Amino acid sequence: MITKSILVTGCNRGLGLELIKQLASHQNTPWCIFAACRNPNEAQDLHHIADMHSNVHLLEIDATNHETIVQAEEEIAEYVQDDGLNVLFNNAGQIQGNEMRIKNVDVDNLRRLIEVNTITPLVMAQTFLPLVRKASLLRKPSKEMNVSRAAILNMCGIAASFGENIYGGKYSYRMSKVGMNIMGQNLGMELKRDRILSVNIHPGWVKTDLGGKTAPLDKEDSIKQLIETLPQLNEAHTGTHWDTFHNKQLPW
Amino acid sequence: MITKSILVTGCNRGLGLELIKQLASHQNTPWCIFAACRNPNEAQDLHHIADMHSNVHLLEIDATNHETIVQAEEEIAEYVQDDGLNVLFNNAGQIQGNEMRIKNVDVDNLRRLIEVNTITPLVMAQTFLPLVRKASLLRKPSKEMNVSRAAILNMCGIAASFGENIYGGKYSYRMSKVGMNIMGQNLGMELKRDRILSVNIHPGWVKTDLGGKTAPLDKEDSIKQLIETLPQLNEAHTGTHWDTFHNKQLPW
Repeated sequence: MITKSILVTGCNRGLGLELIKQLASHQNTPWCIFAACRNPNEAQDLHHIADMHSNVHLLEIDATNHETIVQAEEEIAEYVQDDGLNVLFNNAGQIQGNEMRIKNVDVDNLRRLIEVNTITPLVMAQTFLPLVRKASLLRKPSKEMNVSRAAILNMCGIAASFGENIYGGKYSYRMSKVGMNIMGQNLGMELKRDRILSVNIHPGWVKTDLGGKTAPLDKEDSIKQLIETLPQLNEAHTGTHWDTFHNKQLPW
Repeated sequence: MITKSILVTGCNRGLGLELIKQLASHQNTPWCIFAACRNPNEAQDLHHIADMHSNVHLLEIDATNHETIVQAEEEIAEYVQDDGLNVLFNNAGQIQGNEMRIKNVDVDNLRRLIEVNTITPLVMAQTFLPLVRKASLLRKPSKEMNVSRAAILNMCGIAASFGENIYGGKYSYRMSKVGMNIMGQNLGMELKRDRILSVNIHPGWVKTDLGGKTAPLDKEDSIKQLIETLPQLNEAHTGTHWDTFHNKQLPW
């Protein structure tokens, strides 16, 4: 089994939806897949998957309404009980903010992006850490670190990498994602003693609303490779920004 | 002359105050030093410097009130006229946010830090860029890039460096400063054609409220070295995070 239980945010479309789809039909499908999105009632594709796979559970998490995060945690805690939650995958994110020049940055839009791409992943990690820690404690005294045991993953595009920033631009998007990136690095250090992995995930350059039509990867191939790479992540990867498609570390 | 005109924010204390003090008494003192802070009326040390040096002008800039930024730009534009403004130095910043563990991060405090440490430097750059560009255009057709011509500098501690992040913690501070850091990298790329420098400045580990009492450097030594290093910054430094005390690039 890849892992026993996993929570993924932003599952109504794009990579999040594809991740739920492939996890649900995987031969080693998790015991429990919590698929969160802003409006579960309107997420037809997700409902279709949940109808086919009884281990897929839909949840409401609205990044701009932290009360929904607290409620989702209560639901999940009741469901998993003493098993805890093995993996929190912060996938939800806003993508507007591709200004090539600083004069075109709208400050209110930048604030919204920071709220969704930086603040909410932090609140998610704060809220779900006790459940993830509970899952990790079950494996004591083992020292292993992997997604089968306990992990907090953040979907973090290459645009959040200083070292890969060749052309600049995308001001708001970059400024909102680097905060999440350094949070993930910090978590890698903080959670080592709890044997909880923290990895910032770059899934490759994918044909999505973010990646655009000229991207080389389909979301199917990107997610297939991501799911193959996840079980390989261990202590050596914690606190890094990892390209799961090419299975290599990105520069900061 | 180090540069003809410079605007520095956060000058009521710490490194900002020391920078104004040393610039004002420098043998090559700028023609015009605009020293901004939140409450000029209460900034006694600044008033003392301004009383002694007629090239020091006090201005009100409150990071949380962008209207003060617009007003300051109008005042400076009227003063410098066709000369433009050579250097914008975003020095103001908030330092609370040294949580060692993610559970101790207060989300409202994090938002405040991001507002002051990320959003305001962006608004400052947006607002003053036309004046800085005006100063740069006066040197056309020269290709030189230096603080004597035109520069946007951001005070950016080592805590904003991923590569130097060894112990983690300082969640809010790090998360609020990396956004400014990547903005400065982006500006380096965007403003090259305008021959405007963009450098993120690390002034060394200094005995300030931020650096603590165990820091090896006095603010006097830190700023003395910073002022010596500034004239050496050129096209090779633009878009980098530069340690002005050791005169070396920081990893991202």
